[in-house]
Order: sequence, then structure tokens, then C-alpha cells
Amino acid sequence: MILNKFYVDDVIKNALLEDVNYVDQATAFVIPETSVSTARFLAKADGVLAGLEVALRVFELLDASVTAEVMKHDGDALQKGDVIATLTGPTRALLQGERTALNLLQHMSGVATATNRAVKLTAGTGASIADTRKTLPGLRALEKYAVMMGGGRNHRFNLSDAAMLKDNHIDAGGGITKTVGVLREKLGHTVKIEVETRNMDEVKEAVAVGADIIMLDNMTADQMREATAYIAGRALTEASGNITLENLAEKAKSGVDIISMGALTHSVTALDISMKIK
Amino acid sequence: MILNKFYVDDVIKNALLEDVNYVDQATAFVIPETSVSTARFLAKADGVLAGLEVALRVFELLDASVTAEVMKHDGDALQKGDVIATLTGPTRALLQGERTALNLLQHMSGVATATNRAVKLTAGTGASIADTRKTLPGLRALEKYAVMMGGGRNHRFNLSDAAMLKDNHIDAGGGITKTVGVLREKLGHTVKIEVETRNMDEVKEAVAVGADIIMLDNMTADQMREATAYIAGRALTEASGNITLENLAEKAKSGVDIISMGALTHSVTALDISMKIK
Amino acid sequence: MILNKFYVDDVIKNALLEDVNYVDQATAFVIPETSVSTARFLAKADGVLAGLEVALRVFELLDASVTAEVMKHDGDALQKGDVIATLTGPTRALLQGERTALNLLQHMSGVATATNRAVKLTAGTGASIADTRKTLPGLRALEKYAVMMGGGRNHRFNLSDAAMLKDNHIDAGGGITKTVGVLREKLGHTVKIEVETRNMDEVKEAVAVGADIIMLDNMTADQMREATAYIAGRALTEASGNITLENLAEKAKSGVDIISMGALTHSVTALDISMKIK
Amino acid sequence: MILNKFYVDDVIKNALLEDVNYVDQATAFVIPETSVSTARFLAKADGVLAGLEVALRVFELLDASVTAEVMKHDGDALQKGDVIATLTGPTRALLQGERTALNLLQHMSGVATATNRAVKLTAGTGASIADTRKTLPGLRALEKYAVMMGGGRNHRFNLSDAAMLKDNHIDAGGGITKTVGVLREKLGHTVKIEVETRNMDEVKEAVAVGADIIMLDNMTADQMREATAYIAGRALTEASGNITLENLAEKAKSGVDIISMGALTHSVTALDISMKIK
Amino acid sequence: MILNKFYVDDVIKNALLEDVNYVDQATAFVIPETSVSTARFLAKADGVLAGLEVALRVFELLDASVTAEVMKHDGDALQKGDVIATLTGPTRALLQGERTALNLLQHMSGVATATNRAVKLTAGTGASIADTRKTLPGLRALEKYAVMMGGGRNHRFNLSDAAMLKDNHIDAGGGITKTVGVLREKLGHTVKIEVETRNMDEVKEAVAVGADIIMLDNMTADQMREATAYIAGRALTEASGNITLENLAEKAKSGVDIISMGALTHSVTALDISMKIK
Amino acid sequence: MILNKFYVDDVIKNALLEDVNYVDQATAFVIPETSVSTARFLAKADGVLAGLEVALRVFELLDASVTAEVMKHDGDALQKGDVIATLTGPTRALLQGERTALNLLQHMSGVATATNRAVKLTAGTGASIADTRKTLPGLRALEKYAVMMGGGRNHRFNLSDAAMLKDNHIDAGGGITKTVGVLREKLGHTVKIEVETRNMDEVKEAVAVGADIIMLDNMTADQMREATAYIAGRALTEASGNITLENLAEKAKSGVDIISMGALTHSVTALDISMKIK
Repeated sequence: MILNKFYVDDVIKNALLEDVNYVDQATAFVIPETSVSTARFLAKADGVLAGLEVALRVFELLDASVTAEVMKHDGDALQKGDVIATLTGPTRALLQGERTALNLLQHMSGVATATNRAVKLTAGTGASIADTRKTLPGLRALEKYAVMMGGGRNHRFNLSDAAMLKDNHIDAGGGITKTVGVLREKLGHTVKIEVETRNMDEVKEAVAVGADIIMLDNMTADQMREATAYIAGRALTEASGNITLENLAEKAKSGVDIISMGALTHSVTALDISMKIK
Repeated sequence: MILNKFYVDDVIKNALLEDVNYVDQATAFVIPETSVSTARFLAKADGVLAGLEVALRVFELLDASVTAEVMKHDGDALQKGDVIATLTGPTRALLQGERTALNLLQHMSGVATATNRAVKLTAGTGASIADTRKTLPGLRALEKYAVMMGGGRNHRFNLSDAAMLKDNHIDAGGGITKTVGVLREKLGHTVKIEVETRNMDEVKEAVAVGADIIMLDNMTADQMREATAYIAGRALTEASGNITLENLAEKAKSGVDIISMGALTHSVTALDISMKIK
Repeated sequence: MILNKFYVDDVIKNALLEDVNYVDQATAFVIPETSVSTARFLAKADGVLAGLEVALRVFELLDASVTAEVMKHDGDALQKGDVIATLTGPTRALLQGERTALNLLQHMSGVATATNRAVKLTAGTGASIADTRKTLPGLRALEKYAVMMGGGRNHRFNLSDAAMLKDNHIDAGGGITKTVGVLREKLGHTVKIEVETRNMDEVKEAVAVGADIIMLDNMTADQMREATAYIAGRALTEASGNITLENLAEKAKSGVDIISMGALTHSVTALDISMKIK
Repeated sequence: MILNKFYVDDVIKNALLEDVNYVDQATAFVIPETSVSTARFLAKADGVLAGLEVALRVFELLDASVTAEVMKHDGDALQKGDVIATLTGPTRALLQGERTALNLLQHMSGVATATNRAVKLTAGTGASIADTRKTLPGLRALEKYAVMMGGGRNHRFNLSDAAMLKDNHIDAGGGITKTVGVLREKLGHTVKIEVETRNMDEVKEAVAVGADIIMLDNMTADQMREATAYIAGRALTEASGNITLENLAEKAKSGVDIISMGALTHSVTALDISMKIK
Repeated sequence: MILNKFYVDDVIKNALLEDVNYVDQATAFVIPETSVSTARFLAKADGVLAGLEVALRVFELLDASVTAEVMKHDGDALQKGDVIATLTGPTRALLQGERTALNLLQHMSGVATATNRAVKLTAGTGASIADTRKTLPGLRALEKYAVMMGGGRNHRFNLSDAAMLKDNHIDAGGGITKTVGVLREKLGHTVKIEVETRNMDEVKEAVAVGADIIMLDNMTADQMREATAYIAGRALTEASGNITLENLAEKAKSGVDIISMGALTHSVTALDISMKIK
Repeated sequence: MILNKFYVDDVIKNALLEDVNYVDQATAFVIPETSVSTARFLAKADGVLAGLEVALRVFELLDASVTAEVMKHDGDALQKGDVIATLTGPTRALLQGERTALNLLQHMSGVATATNRAVKLTAGTGASIADTRKTLPGLRALEKYAVMMGGGRNHRFNLSDAAMLKDNHIDAGGGITKTVGVLREKLGHTVKIEVETRNMDEVKEAVAVGADIIMLDNMTADQMREATAYIAGRALTEASGNITLENLAEKAKSGVDIISMGALTHSVTALDISMKIK
């Protein structure tokens, strides 16, 4: 697993405590402890798979004797009807883990699928698709991993990772030049500084002060073209704001390096995947 | 707050640890500790508000001196342009809590808005809209509360709350009659038993054995009409499966009591709400 | 295990941290790491077994190499002298887990034994014995499971599971009819409403408004007879208050469905079970 | 509060999450947020109070605006009818905390009351009453505090605090002399060593090797007299095993220093205390 | 506080549970609950202060009524005899928090003091002093903050923040060029890539592939001079390995940007600060 | 493992979450999941080993398939060049655990080494070396274990274990005699009472009142000699304050039983141990 196992296990255990509480009333009294079943994850729509390792870990934590045969891997394209994996183990464990596993798998695959759609729309341009901090509380690592599986790239994970200067910071700090200067003194050498800009004056000031990344905030494709031409590789450029699947291709052609989209994680449509227990 | 404060506080603290980690690099070194600002939550789209109390609690936990003036309350309809609330307090706290508060508020309001859309489509019928266990791990309580704020009703919270017998349980238990019988012996008297049915034979068996709730699984509107006519109040009826905004109104007219929709929580579009700090 | 494994493991880990803290001073320096022993759980009094799976899990968590041979199962009647199970594994693990395992096993078996005594006193009546929320903080799931093993049934697990209207709620809500009406609008369709009543007027009002369960609070056997005759199956009936082993049989004959007894969990006499390590 | 506040707060928060889960269904929808009430804790039986500070802390954590007037303090004797304290605050907080507060208060007062009964039976002898590690998992600190409030003394809190050598240790260590010798080398100078003895030979060996405490295990009053006479203050003496309220007074007269009783905490009868909200 | 409050509070609560466990035996029974005292933190050696806000938070969490007057702030130089702050509040809280507060304050000030010594030795060169991941488990955020207070800069906080390629990675990845290439594809745009080099060939390859930071591992001052001259600002340079207070000044003059020193956090001498309660 | 496994596992999991956060950026994308390597722990300086079991547990928790061959054990003397252990397992696990394992191993071995140095300086006297509560928050159990491995003894673990009366307690309690008297009444019989003394008058009072341990605070070797001669075995004696490696031998010859040194844990120099992965 690429993700930190301890991180994932904590998410799963909390999810199972939330979903089961103290007893699975239907299963505990009806399904014999010795009953063994086989289940399979089936794609019921086209998309990109993400979260299979996490979903399988749900069952492994419930009962170490559950085994899996894996046909598709995280990052693989799915077509409706694809069998993703089959699981064999105690029926109780399969039933108890089903909802938690599917909730995670469908959500993560939904994120990967949406990301992949955006990635394809920018094909042939130099632009990458990135996520934001607009994630669902407690699920950021899983969502960012899913963005990666969809072909996107991760923006900073948290406020400690990188410094992004928004208008409030710049106003309080006395302008771009002065604020970046203060931060350069304080921040560690591995921490990049990104500056939000809304017009060419701000872009120029950000380049001059040596910002690592310049965010072009809510700019038109034309403005973005002018900005990236001026910046000319002296900083990474990131487009953000008012980006939709409709205008994405056009904006991607502006020469910008990164296009970050909150909707990849704040407005996710679950990918339809079923788990059928036989 | 209707929700258990300890439950909500745990979600918020985890979210802030996830989002901030150990230091807000931009804010800590640029915004003076004594700086005080005012911020406001503004609706940028029409919808239904949910999560304001949770969002305000984010700031209260960050700094007890933050105060709020509240114009809209959870459950209120929002129109684009509505000011929801204003906050005054240390700028650092406002900036540090902004993303976590918005992530929660936009998601919960998204759930409430989608619920309310479904509720309106069933107006004039006796059908209520309900959620499912298809929620995002760790956020179930917040999402179920948001469904309530949108005018919907909550299905069971977890597997301990109520027993739902799906085909796997019924097969293992030796049919509907026998399985319900076994459970009646074991379950507490506050726990309702719901039986999934796919045809009239199963409906009749479920009625005969005294199921509290009968789920009409993936039935057409005609089938549902037949089933509810037969059941005639002897059990609550719940429609589930293949329900979309398009066919919702028709299904609601079938006489069913409850229509449960996974999409209310598994495929949420965040409601666009901004937080502007002045 | 019927109980949610993650729930049980958390209780056990906390118990072991509480009981051991950082080192078992006597064992760590005297018992060789390679020493292996056999232990057995022995009933030293008659009763009903509950918690054996939990007790065995204590040792499994301490050392995965501990094995057990099980002669008696949760729910079985025990007679003084019965060997319940034998355990073989590292002596250190056996000694370190002994007290925690026994504390859980004796307490849970004490609950099951007391429950079973009450269940037997109501034999031949239609009344079931149920627990309450008068449980020991942190141990509710284990205690409710033990009630089940003793032949009793579980009342609601928590305040989210079911709504019980006590005098404070009814007064604040404007009487039984109005209060139940408000709740019916708000609560999910799986949540039962129980109304506390103290006289026939309240009983009648609760029936009229369609309460799912009617609690007959502190009533005499005669009053209970009158109430259950009136209710006549239109609601489940629950007797509560002033119920002792002495008057239990008489009250059970009143036609009431459920008799709930706080003493099953708030005043538990541990069942005497020893663990002897050879 | 004598107990560590962080320890107590953790117990309370877990208890409230267990008891409420995510919403108090009855209270949240019926009791107005602005409603304020007064409640009082009333003794419904004679006993000794313990846990009042803990019970009041439940409400303080739920709502900081709850205030209390305290008439009785932990350790005070209670007579049936005594008002212990009155509380004023939001009705919702009072209702939500009621069960958790009472569960703690009744249990702790039950422990204190039972302890005090034993203490009185030993009055005029030099013997103190002590608890054991036979406590309910997760509640040891509260129970040991309650023993103290009842006039008893605390035995070791956990396996790290003191070393008690039971037969298994002594057999593995090669006899009392050798085992104590090994431990003396290893253990810190603040850690006392207690040796379990079953006859005068063992008592003599324990004295000779300088045990800090000698446990007289399952001895008759005569044996205990002989042992304490021999020991003559060279070690503390502790009686344990087969001690009941009936034989307690006689055993206390044997000259033993400490009588430890598992029943003080493993078989607690809750003290009847009510909380009435007006 | 610059550090995330929730992060710090967790460290403090765990520390107090560790240090107090359930009761402060000496204080609880000897110091009256109403006793109020004043205490002061006094520097008993020269150094740099770090951790005062954390230390004061210890008392605030123990008792909200403790107040402080602050004479020195984190980052200030201390001279033996300086009064750092005075505290007034319940004597019990002062005594219970004393050890935890001092343990944190002395350790953090020890880190700041050592850092500052190194910073001064590099004065006049362009080199900054940085920490490493050689920190004490659970205390990384506090230690890195202390490095900052001593005038140093923070290296990456964790393995998610930045990618450092060591020989194992480079070997597995097929050389510097190929490995950096693979990572560039995968990593987010805010994540810097650092490459460990041991000779000029590796330095040249790292420059060519566009590494953000080049670590000069265990190089002599002469080698470092050659490397930094070659790199000429095309990447940040970091010296690591075999750096002592003796050779630090010479290495700093080599033109390197960053000198990272594990000893700042893995081998800390506590700064002598006392807390005297009057 | 002598230490409580649950205690150690919690420290390790927290450390790994701190050090890795959600993904090891360098390892996850460069090292194949199937790659297996061998690593070895090598002593790069002379010292005493402590923490090997803890370090190996890091890898076992990361991947159960990691195996180890152990050449040196906790408590063994190490010479520069000694191979301590070799590990074989997935390269990813080895790389991910490396820093956490080394941070723990080097710190614990540093504590053991410093302790052992002090122990050797007191050889031939009756004095033992002990630790204090001046430990690093969250690491006390590991540090105290390391002191033991270095040949030292552990002072009390926390404030619940033993009562130490400092000047504040004695002043508040009305002098040594009265304060010890009060505590004797309250404290459990396993809890020792230690009294801090600064002159012969206090020593005499402490002996008279039967203190278990008398601390000779900041006394000269001559004063200590006088005190221990007077005490003559009637209490354990502990020297504390102003003890350095220089004056340790002299003080140890004074006849004191215990010499406690905060520096063993508050000012630790990590022992240089490397982990080389092949």
C-alpha cells in the first residue's frame, strides 16, 4: 500500500465502530459463525479504480482469514461489468465489512474517475490537474491518493507543508514583496512559497520576489496566457477558481503548469461498484 | 446544538490536526497575534443551510474569544447573496479555521440541499425521504443531521440500531418467516426488524410474520402500488433502489411511506458558500 | 464473537494499560520469557457464563501464541466445579492477563447469572426481562451482551437508538399527545417512541397517540393488569421501578411484555470464577 | 478534585459518547435550547457519598453554564432524604448528563458505603480495610478513590506500582528467598515487595528475607494471630481471601494491619441516589 | 502560539497522565484546595528560551484560573538569574504541573540554545542551521519549533513533506536521473526533491536533472567548496554528516546554504531553568 | 519484552504517524513493493544497548514478515563496530521504519550508556544510581527501562506511585512530623513516603516520624556522611542535587543508598548506532 498503513487502519477502525457500534443485529443472530462465503466487487459503471487496497484491508482487519483474488488494481480503468476482485472468508466478516468497504471504494473511485476525466481534457497541454484542501474532514489522505490514481497530482497536504499567501496574508504582511521576504527568513528550505495573484502587477511582483509558485486566481484564459508568457518558467504557475469541465481544455492551453480543482474532492459522485455475496 | 457536542468536537479536532498539522506556515509568521478581523459566510448559490453550528464551533475551539452574529439557521433556505453569519475574532483563528469550517459547512449544506430537492418532489404524497448507511466514513452523524435539516428523515444510524434482513440473511436463516422468528427472540424490544422484499410473495410473507418495516427493493411504481395496497398499514414500507430525481415523484405517489436514497450522502455536491475575511 | 471486535479490543487494551501500566514488576523479572504454562478457568459457584470470548481475547492480544480449549460457552449454565476452559501459552502472558480477564469474566457472568435468575422467576408468563441504561460507564456493550447471555433482552443502547419520553419531556412538550406528535415528525422511521405513564389517563393518551412502547412506571401489579388489559397489544408494555426478586413473579403475571431492571447492571455480584496457573 | 482531572474527563467523555451517541432523540426535539431547570441529587438510602465532584463535572463538561450548590461532600455520611446538591442550568444538559452522572455517583457511593461498613466492623482494631485489583475495567481510579472516601485504604494501583509474589512467581523464582533476592536487585527503591504466604514456614522465610508486606492468604483467625505475633512489626501484614462481613471483625482482631477485600469493588451495590429535574 | 494548539494540548495531556496517573499522592492530601501560591521560572544558566507558551499552557489546562506575568519570550536570550515569568494560581495546580512544564521548557530551551550556538558560529556566512528527522518520538513539532526559536530553520517535518533520495532510493530507481524523473511525474508540485550526493559526479547529475536541493553528504570543506561553486545557485545545497561545533565555522564558509545537524535534537542538554513556588 | 507491549506499540504508532504522515514520498514511488533487503544495526561507538526490542517492534508493526537475527541484547555492552542485529524484509518497511527505530534505539542506548557510566563510578560502594521524573514527555517508560538496562534503578514512575514531600508540602502540612502523619493516614500501604531534607534537624525529624526514604538534598559529601551515619539503616537514603560525574564517586562513598540523577534522562547524548540497508 502506498498510503501509511497506520493512517489507513485508523480510518477503517473508526468507520467500523461508527457503522457497527456494538453488534450487527441481523448478522450476529442469523449467520452461523462457521459460514464461509465468496463475494465479488463488480463495476457497475465505467471509471477509474481507487481504494481497492483500502477496501480489502477492511476485511483483513475484521478477520485475518479473509483472502482476496485481485483482478484490477488502483489506477486501472474500469468498464461496467468488470470484476474487480473476489473475496473469500467468514460470511459474518463479509457482511459486516461490506458497507464500510463500499463507502470507501466508491468514494475513492469517484474521486479518481472525476480526476481522470479532467486529466483527459487537458491531454496534450503541459497542464497537470491537482487537488486542493477542499477535502472531506478525516478523509484527506484517501482522497489525495485517489486523485493520484486518477492521474492527477497532489497539492499541499496541510498548512505546514507549503505556504500559500492569500490576500489576507499579503495585506497583513505589507504587500507581496515584504511578505515573501519575511517568510523566506522563517520557513524551512523545503517549504515552497506560493503567491495568489489577480492581475499582472501582482504576477510581476511575485516573479521579482522569487515566489516558487504563482497562483493565477480567477483569471480568464487570455489573462493566463499573458501571465505564463511573462513568467516564462521562473515560477510554477497554478490556475484556480471558476474552472469547469467546460472551460478546462481552453484554460489548460494557456501554458499554465497546474490546474487545481476543489470539485475533485468536495463534490464527488460515488462510482457505482457493487459487492455481491454468494 | 442538536448533535452530541463531544461527537462534533472530536470530528473538528481531527479535522484541524489533519488540515494544519503543527503550524500554519503562512499565518503564523505574517499575521500578528493581536490582529482582529471580521469575516462573513456568504451563500453563493441557492440551497438549504446545514452545519452552521458546527462551523462556528470550529472557531470557538480555536479561540474562545471569537464571537458570531447569526442571520440564518440550520434548516433555513438560502438564496444566493444571503449573508449567513458574521464572525469577529483573532485573524489567525479565522484563517486557521476557514478551510475546515467551509469543508464542513459546504458539505453539510450540500446534503441538506439535495435532500430538500427530493423532499419537494414528493410534496403532497405521504412519502418521506430518508438517508442510508452509504455515508462517508467518520461523517455519518453530520450527514444524517444535514438530511434532517433538509427535511428528510434518518434511517438507522448503525447495525446495532435496527435489523435489516437482506437476501444473505434470509437465505442463511431459512426464509423470511424463520429468520424473523429467530430475531424476534433475540433482539431487544426497541429494535425494529426490516425485511427486504423483491416480489409479492416475499411481501406477503413479511406481513404475515409481522415485520416492522418492509423494504420494496428495486420495484417499479406499479409493483410498489400493489405492495402498499396489500400491506395496508400493517408495516411501514420503504422504497429503495433505482430511485432518481426523475422517477421520484412517480414512486412517491405509489403509497410508500419512506423513500431512501444513498445519493443524498454518497454523491454530494458541496453548496457554494464563501468565507470572506476583511 | 457476537460483539464488535474493535469495540471489545479497545476495552481490553485500556484495561491492560490500566492494570499493568508500563511493566509487571513481579513477572518481568522472575518468570523466564520462555516459560510456558497451562491455566484453567474454574467455576467456584453456580451461575451462567458470559464473557469467555472476551476473556480469551485478553490473552490472544497479549500473545498470539496462547491457545485455548473451551468446555463451556457463553450462555451455558455453570455448576460449581465446572472447568470452563483451559489455556496454554507463555506464563508471562497468562499472569499479565489473569486479573483483567477475570475482572471481565466474573462481572459479565455475574450480570448473566442475575439476569437468568430473574428470567426463571418469570417463566410461564409472557414477560421478558430487560436491562436499562443504568450500566457502568465504558462497559455497556459487555453488560448488555451478558444480559442477553442470561436470557434477557436489551433495552435501547443509547439515547440515539430510541426515544423515551419522561415527565420532563412531556411537560416541556405540552403533554403526551403533542410531544409524541412532534417527535413522529422528526424521528427516523426505525426509531421507536416509548412513553412513561403513571396512571390510566396517561396510558390511554399514549395508546391514542400510537406510542410504540408504553412504560408503566412504578405501578402495582393491579394497576399493571388494568393497563395491559386496556392496551391489549396496541403497544408493547414495559414495567419499571420498584421491581425486586420478591415481587417479580407477581408483576410478570400482570400481562406486561417487558420488565426492565436496573439492578441487573448497576448492582452486580461477580460470579466466582478462578484462574489457576499450573 | 483529588483525582487527576484529565483522567476523570476522559472517563466522562467516553461515558457520554457511549450513552448519547450522536443525538439525544427525545431531548433534542422536545426541550427548547433556552429552557433552564433546577435539579437536585437526593439520597434515597443511607450510605457514604463518593463521586459528587465527578458527577458535577459531567454537567460542567456538557455546558459550562451549569452551576451547583453543594450540601454534602465526598466522604460524608448520607441519610435517606438528604439533599446532596442542587444544579441549575440548561434543561438539555441536565437531561443529557443525568444518566451518566447517576451511574457514576451511585456506583462510587456504593463502593464507599460498602467500604465504610467494613471499616466500622473493624473499629477499635489496628486493621485497615483495603481494596484490590479486582476492579471494573476502566473505572479503577474512581473505585479506589471511592474506597478512600469510605475510610478504606488503597492497595497498589497497578502491576508497576508494587510487586506481589504469588505462588507462580515463587515457584518460578526458586522459592521465597531467592525470588525476593532477585527482585531486590531489579526493582526501584520506591517499590515495595509483598509475599503471599500460606503457612508459618513461608511467613518465617518472608520475614527473614525482609519482605515489606506479608500476605496471609486464606488463613484462619488463629493462624493469623500466630503469624502476626511472629512477624511483630518486621513487615506489614495483609489478610486476604475468604473474608466476609461475618468473619471480618474476628479476623481484624488478629493483629493484622490490612484486610483487603475484592468484593468492595467487584460486587458493588449501587447506592440509591435520585436526580429530580424540576 | 505559533504551534497548533490542538497538537500541543495533546502532548501536554498525555504528559500529565503519564506524570500524575490518577492522583498526586503528596499534594492531594497535604495542600488545601483553596491554597494559592506564586511561582517563578528562573534561568539558572545562559541560553535561549523556547517553550514558555507550552509550559504556561500546562497550568492553564490544569486550572483555568492560573495567571502568568511574562518577562521573557520564546526566542529571547536568557542570562543566568533572569526571571522568565511568574505564575499565580492554586498551589495544587502549580505543584502538579511543575515537572511536566519544566521537562518541556528545559528540553525546548536546550534545543534552542544549542541551535543558537551553531547559528552564531556560522554568522557572516550565508549558511543556515537546520534540524533533521532525528527527533524524539512524539516531540518533533516542539523540537522543530525550538530550533526556529534558536535561529535555525526547519528541515522537512515528515516523509510526506519532501522527498529525499538516499542511496537506497537511487540504487532501486536506477540512478539519480531516472529516479528523479520518476518522482517528478508522481509528486505534487509543492514537494521539493532533495538528492544525496557523495562526489562531484553525483552533484553534476543532480544539477542536470533539476534537483531542488542537493545534499553534500559527509564532504570535506574543500569538496563542499567545489560543489557549491559548480552548483552556483541552480539548487539549494545542504551539508550533512560529521559536522561538529569544531568544524562548523569552516564548513559554513564553503558557500553551502544549509547545514543540518541531528545533534540539535537527538542529543539535547536541558537548559537549567527552575520553578520555585512560594 | 519487559515493557508492556500495548504501551510500546502506542509509542511506536504515534511515532510512525508523526514521521511518515500519509505517504513516504521517496519510497512509495521508487522502491518496488516486492523488493526485499537486509539491514543491520551497527554500533559506531562504545556503550550499552537498550531499546533493541522496541526498535525491532517498529518493523514488525510495519510488516509482519520482517525477520531479525539478534546478536546483542538490551543491557549488553557494545563496542564500536559490533553488529547488533540484522533484519530482513520488504525494503519499503525497512526504509519507512529506519528513522523511528533509530531515534528510539539511539536515545534509549544513550540513556543506558550514561547510566552505566555513573554505575561504574560508584562501583564498590553501596550506592545505586537512580533516575528521576525529569524525563521527556511521552517517553518515560522507555527511558526508565533504559536506565535499568544500564544498571541503574528506577525511582517512582509517577505521582501516584510514591509520595515525595518537598518543602512546599512540608510547609503547607505544618512541618515534617505532622505532614507525614497526615499522609500515613491517607496513603495506601504499598506507597512509600520520602521526605526531602536539607540539614540534620530535618533528617532527625524524618527518621523519628518513620519516613521510608530520606532525601539528602544538595548536601556535601560530609553532610551526607553525617546523615547516613545518623540514619543507620532506619530509612533508605537518597542523594539528589548537584551531582556530577566528577563528584559522583566521592558522594557514593558517603554511605548513601541511592543517588538520583536527572541528567540521565533530561540531557541524553544519543549513542551512535547506524542502520545500513543493503
